Amino acid sequence: MSDLEVSVGDIRAAQVRIAGDVVRTPLLPASWAPGDLWLKAENLQPIGAFKLRGAVNAIRRLDPDVRARGVVTHSSGNHGRAVAWAARAAGVRAVIVMPEEAMPVKVEATRALGAEVIMAPGVRRETVADAVRAERGMTLIPPFDHADVISGQGTLAVEILEDLTDIDTVLVPVGGGGLISGVGVAVNALSHRTRVVGVEPSLAADTRDSLANGRRIEWDAQATYRTIADGTRTPVVGEITFPIIQATVEEIVTVDEDDILAAVGTLARRAHLVAEPSGALSVAAYLAEPRKYGRAVAVLSGGNIDPPVLARALGLTP
Amino acid sequence: MSDLEVSVGDIRAAQVRIAGDVVRTPLLPASWAPGDLWLKAENLQPIGAFKLRGAVNAIRRLDPDVRARGVVTHSSGNHGRAVAWAARAAGVRAVIVMPEEAMPVKVEATRALGAEVIMAPGVRRETVADAVRAERGMTLIPPFDHADVISGQGTLAVEILEDLTDIDTVLVPVGGGGLISGVGVAVNALSHRTRVVGVEPSLAADTRDSLANGRRIEWDAQATYRTIADGTRTPVVGEITFPIIQATVEEIVTVDEDDILAAVGTLARRAHLVAEPSGALSVAAYLAEPRKYGRAVAVLSGGNIDPPVLARALGLTP
Repeated sequence: MSDLEVSVGDIRAAQVRIAGDVVRTPLLPASWAPGDLWLKAENLQPIGAFKLRGAVNAIRRLDPDVRARGVVTHSSGNHGRAVAWAARAAGVRAVIVMPEEAMPVKVEATRALGAEVIMAPGVRRETVADAVRAERGMTLIPPFDHADVISGQGTLAVEILEDLTDIDTVLVPVGGGGLISGVGVAVNALSHRTRVVGVEPSLAADTRDSLANGRRIEWDAQATYRTIADGTRTPVVGEITFPIIQATVEEIVTVDEDDILAAVGTLARRAHLVAEPSGALSVAAYLAEPRKYGRAVAVLSGGNIDPPVLARALGLTP
Repeated sequence: MSDLEVSVGDIRAAQVRIAGDVVRTPLLPASWAPGDLWLKAENLQPIGAFKLRGAVNAIRRLDPDVRARGVVTHSSGNHGRAVAWAARAAGVRAVIVMPEEAMPVKVEATRALGAEVIMAPGVRRETVADAVRAERGMTLIPPFDHADVISGQGTLAVEILEDLTDIDTVLVPVGGGGLISGVGVAVNALSHRTRVVGVEPSLAADTRDSLANGRRIEWDAQATYRTIADGTRTPVVGEITFPIIQATVEEIVTVDEDDILAAVGTLARRAHLVAEPSGALSVAAYLAEPRKYGRAVAVLSGGNIDPPVLARALGLTP
């Protein structure tokens, strides 16, 4: 694995770098579940998702004069909030380009973190972000396909392995692959007995297809929008993350929409944790086949759910 | 304070005794809140409430021959679940006497923990529990008015003080006073700068009245049932807990029903934690007067909420 873009040394360095800004989230026993399940509760990060780790690491890694010119990204979701939060913590300016169809509540939440929000048509948001980068001399912080972002996300796996021994499986939601590639590097280096298994919605299983074909397979973006797990609607896995996934991930499994929503409801009722659909993918996969995974850790990657979806997951509305 | 029934040494001993059974819950920064608020997330205990601490300590303290005869209590709520869970962990039999009007889902949850459930008319449940105790030679585990139960609950405060320094205020929900008296003993012994403030619903403020009058004031039990915070519907504070509260608690504040429900909704949306109304009392009190409390820890004491109440707290149903 020496030719991969991220090493366990990078992840260890990231762990020291982000310690002051990021919550060391708890690894909680799920005694209500069959078998032997533990939850890495990343929904308890200040912005409600693991994305903070990569954003903080990427911004803290910038040279002071580069950092002083600020950072920019495009995202309507957790990555945008993460960059806004991390920039404020580092005392630098942030511009978040959001699609015009983004919900006002998400726009306001990002502005409340001190970021400048620029609205753009959804199809043009990458172009607009790049123009801001060029005009203002800002640095683009990509959502997943960047070594510093991947290293930051991988810190979560080091914490898991510090907290629990004899883990057979770590289950990780997969969108663009930033989280699972960081986890893969850390787990492969630090625990030979532990398998890393990715989880995608059946309706956005591009990474499963890419692994099966040995090359990056792109799904139609509209097709991925059918899943409720909005954090995994990336149509194609990253150029940097894919070879890491090939080298470190044993398997990608898929889950259906009903099981995703049921897992959100179970987590609220039994674990007293609010998970977003993408965050509950790992638990959905575990509950579908608990005996397959042995002693398992499910990464509960985020908690930013719209309340009506939570109500539906709890069976209170159809 | 040398004449109180519980010492910080008892709490330290409890901490060692319960470590294998109880989760060391996280102390989470609430960066979404004004001021400087931290949450002690006891809703993340296996049974979803702090009650597990006291039940485990009380059962583990029993002599082996006494313990072998089993334990009994009466409760339809978190204490019953805690005793059932702790008894199973210690390998002893448990009988939980529950009122006939208890919701079937709660009865099933207690049976699922391996306890024998005996249904009794609400007014007779103490009598029935005492008869079981006498006939079977079992030991009664009271919900709050017992030194071992109080010592167990106090372990939560030792963890808080290990995790964070310079705390000005610890806000604690108050029912029978088991939790706040344990917290009071620990905080008074270990952190001179830290005040302990109790929180009751305005509709069940018997402990506030007791403190103001210098003697235990009993409220009409039916009156306390008006509050949605069902864990605090104890009509009178305990005989053992009251003098400890007098010696160690600075003040009891009250919160209204609307503020309790709003705090439940805020915790779900912003902290991604499911809290029951009693568990959110402390957060409701903080949010009403954030500048009053300085650096504050709110004990989020439990998360066992009925889903329709959660939906109401989220503003999804009237």
